[in-house]
Amino acid sequence: MRIFGIDPGSNRTGYGCIEYSGSQQRLVTCGAIAAPRRASLPEKLRVIHGELASLLATCQPTCVAVESLFHARNVQSVLKLAHVRGVVVLAATQADLPVVEYAPTEIKRAVVGYGRAEKHQVQQMIKLLLGLDEMPTPHDAADALAVALCHAHNLTPTGSVVDDSAARLSQPRSWRRVKPEKLATRRQS
Amino acid sequence: MRIFGIDPGSNRTGYGCIEYSGSQQRLVTCGAIAAPRRASLPEKLRVIHGELASLLATCQPTCVAVESLFHARNVQSVLKLAHVRGVVVLAATQADLPVVEYAPTEIKRAVVGYGRAEKHQVQQMIKLLLGLDEMPTPHDAADALAVALCHAHNLTPTGSVVDDSAARLSQPRSWRRVKPEKLATRRQS
Repeated sequence: MRIFGIDPGSNRTGYGCIEYSGSQQRLVTCGAIAAPRRASLPEKLRVIHGELASLLATCQPTCVAVESLFHARNVQSVLKLAHVRGVVVLAATQADLPVVEYAPTEIKRAVVGYGRAEKHQVQQMIKLLLGLDEMPTPHDAADALAVALCHAHNLTPTGSVVDDSAARLSQPRSWRRVKPEKLATRRQS
Repeated sequence: MRIFGIDPGSNRTGYGCIEYSGSQQRLVTCGAIAAPRRASLPEKLRVIHGELASLLATCQPTCVAVESLFHARNVQSVLKLAHVRGVVVLAATQADLPVVEYAPTEIKRAVVGYGRAEKHQVQQMIKLLLGLDEMPTPHDAADALAVALCHAHNLTPTGSVVDDSAARLSQPRSWRRVKPEKLATRRQS
C-alpha cells in the first residue's frame, strides 16, 4: 500500500510517499513544491496543482493523507492556506484517490509520541522510522512524510482505517479534530 | 469585452457572463453549478472545477471576477468556502484568465447603490441593468452577474481597471477589502 502525504502551504507544499505493508514502511519519494515567492496566489495555485497531479501520476499511491487546518492567529494566512488545500484535495480526487486528513497534533503524537513536538524532532523520528541515512529536508517534506506515517499507523494489517478518518472529509464535521485519546480508544476496541 | 462573474459556494456556485462595451452591457449566460448535496467536499470540488472549466471554455471571457471572502461567524463554513474559492481561482488561471475580486459590500454598492442591499434588490437591479424579462434565478446566478457588473463599472472605456483591483490577487494585501470611498477617489483622479 502506498500512502502519499501532503503538507499544504502557499509558499512550499511538502509531499512524501511511503510504501507500507503490515509493520514495515519504506520511503518512495519526498520533497517540496516551491511556488515562486513573488507569484500571485492564482499562479501559485496553478503551479501546486500541476506539480501535484504529475507526482500522483508518477507515484501511483493508494490514498492521499493531508494535514488538516489549524486555527492560527492570522486569519488571512489560514484563508490563503485553505485555498491551497482546496487545490491539493482537488488534485487527489481528480486522480480518483481517497483523501484522509489528520490534525497537526495527531500527526506529531503518532510519529514522535508528543502532540507539541518540535520540527527537528519530527525530522529525526522520520529518519529513524524510515531507516534513512539523513533527515529529510526541507521540513515540509518531513511533515508530509509524518502525515503519511500517521495514516499508516491508523491502518489495520488488512489496510482498512481503524478510526474511520477516511470518512471524515465526506462529513460536514470533517473539519473537526478527532482527539488522539478518542483514536486510542477506537484502536483498542 | 466579456466578464465572467463567479459567486463561490460549496453547495451552489453561481456564475454569470456579461458582454460589456463602454456603457452598454448584455447577458451572455448565467446559472449555478449545484454540487450533489450529500457528496463529500473533495467530490464537490471536482464537480465545481470540471463544470467551471467547461463553462470558461464555452464563454471565452476576457477576465474572471470573483466575490471575495467575508468574515462570517461560522469559521468552518468560511474555511470550506475558501477551499471552493481555491478551486474556482485555479479554473480561471488554468484558462489563462486574469482574476479580480470584490468584497460583497462593494458589489452591492456598485449594483444597487447600497452596501447592505437584500438579495431580491440585487436580483431586481440585475434585471433592470441587463434589460431582462425576468429576475435571474437562483440568487447565486444574480450574485455572480452582480460581481461581473461591479467589475464592468470599475473599467474605463478603454478596458483597463480604474481601481487596480486586477492586481489585488497578486499582492499579499489581496484579501483586504478596498473601501468604496477609496475606489471613488481613485476614479475621480
